[in-house]
Amino acid sequence: MRLAPDNRSDYKVFQVVPTRWNDNDSFGHLNNAVHYSLFDSAIANWLMQNASLDAASDGQICVVVENGCTYFEELSFPDVITVGLRITSIGTSSVRYEIGLFRNEKQTASARGHFVHVYVNAASRTPEPIGDTLRNLFKSISADA
Amino acid sequence: MRLAPDNRSDYKVFQVVPTRWNDNDSFGHLNNAVHYSLFDSAIANWLMQNASLDAASDGQICVVVENGCTYFEELSFPDVITVGLRITSIGTSSVRYEIGLFRNEKQTASARGHFVHVYVNAASRTPEPIGDTLRNLFKSISADA
Amino acid sequence: MRLAPDNRSDYKVFQVVPTRWNDNDSFGHLNNAVHYSLFDSAIANWLMQNASLDAASDGQICVVVENGCTYFEELSFPDVITVGLRITSIGTSSVRYEIGLFRNEKQTASARGHFVHVYVNAASRTPEPIGDTLRNLFKSISADA
Amino acid sequence: MRLAPDNRSDYKVFQVVPTRWNDNDSFGHLNNAVHYSLFDSAIANWLMQNASLDAASDGQICVVVENGCTYFEELSFPDVITVGLRITSIGTSSVRYEIGLFRNEKQTASARGHFVHVYVNAASRTPEPIGDTLRNLFKSISADA
Repeated sequence: MRLAPDNRSDYKVFQVVPTRWNDNDSFGHLNNAVHYSLFDSAIANWLMQNASLDAASDGQICVVVENGCTYFEELSFPDVITVGLRITSIGTSSVRYEIGLFRNEKQTASARGHFVHVYVNAASRTPEPIGDTLRNLFKSISADA
Repeated sequence: MRLAPDNRSDYKVFQVVPTRWNDNDSFGHLNNAVHYSLFDSAIANWLMQNASLDAASDGQICVVVENGCTYFEELSFPDVITVGLRITSIGTSSVRYEIGLFRNEKQTASARGHFVHVYVNAASRTPEPIGDTLRNLFKSISADA
Repeated sequence: MRLAPDNRSDYKVFQVVPTRWNDNDSFGHLNNAVHYSLFDSAIANWLMQNASLDAASDGQICVVVENGCTYFEELSFPDVITVGLRITSIGTSSVRYEIGLFRNEKQTASARGHFVHVYVNAASRTPEPIGDTLRNLFKSISADA
Repeated sequence: MRLAPDNRSDYKVFQVVPTRWNDNDSFGHLNNAVHYSLFDSAIANWLMQNASLDAASDGQICVVVENGCTYFEELSFPDVITVGLRITSIGTSSVRYEIGLFRNEKQTASARGHFVHVYVNAASRTPEPIGDTLRNLFKSISADA
């Protein structure tokens, strides 16, 4: 069954991002791949502002193992997008983000994405437990918080 | 549960695509958004070679309502990617593609994506049945075929 | 001889644009192609806010015939870029933009680009004179103004 | 004065590159930034196949200090592009590439780009002389060769 669009109030932190002319494809709307670029940047920005992309314990990095998007409505340059972020699951080594894209002043989402990151040892690439500092940061934008 | 990587023999048609220098992000591997660009292009190319992006009945267009990707292994410029395509579901108005990305000579997939397209009336944007010509084309690369 | 970086005061109008995670390439800095995407969007945004991309007389469109960039300093996600715009030449059918990219709070440009647009008949693609409305708009951000 | 399109015979080495669906922008043709992505990849591929991106003497890297493009004709997905490469100038620390983009079977270029790379010390970022191995590689595709 298809997801229903949710609202700004369902997200915890926000960033405002202008679209770019070449985000549009031949159909005159944002190409689906651009949504992932917005998801990616929102997560990276939030991590860098609050900790760091290297916030994991020494020698850990995070890798995307799965992501996806449900599209409710077209977005199009020159729309300005408000990107909402929340975390819906925190495992031993993994974290699941959900991201809402809100078009200009709209209160309901035009698209909802999810990203699953796994923290791995940078050398061996085997999963390792997420440290407490990062775990607490994740809890701060948990959908249950 | 996480998907397992499948093989080239699980796909029906293939395209060979070189990576580009700026497909890599700061981590030195293909950014996740690039995978969607490869999925997108593979589907569009296949439709244009076998029918047309406008292959639907008069006045119909197709829109992406959902997509996603599971990442098994990093891809990196200058890898050459073989993109495999199959169709796993054909509904009244919708079709579901699965796409495998195979790195250089590898037989197991580095990533698996899916795309759900819905055919809509170009004017009203309401779903309409897929015509027989297109339906038969979809059956020709069905995973059951 | 190589261009020297100029200053914010050398530009007429400005837009503030966040960088995106995948703007960075393997070298960990903005890929050169991204600069053109920023130039493009700045011009399109300015045209749409002040007139329209279709601001030309009926049946005209503009096409890029030449562009280029001189790079003074690396830009890198998560830098926020201030994009300055000015017009340095207005011909019968053509207009030449210069664009400065300013990194975060810096007053001197990290890159300077130029774009030459030609207005053509949408059907025949032959150059046509720029109309007065658009010409006056161009004059308003002329480097001589 | 505007450059005239040149021919395949004016270039020394070639790569064949398919376009991607989202290379097209709202105008239904390749966005100008995509041309730079094709230029970039052609140079990087050629360097990696014949030497390495790190082919410079130990501790050197190359940076783009200037590039540009003249557009003769629109390119559009699903065009397949033949990218031609030649070197027009080899200085003490710098090298100038020219790149021709040829649409499908066309013999005259649809676009011509140039890239100026400077070899610098990776640590200090000051220009350093290009070593003999790399200099000889550059000569092998010199426009005068």
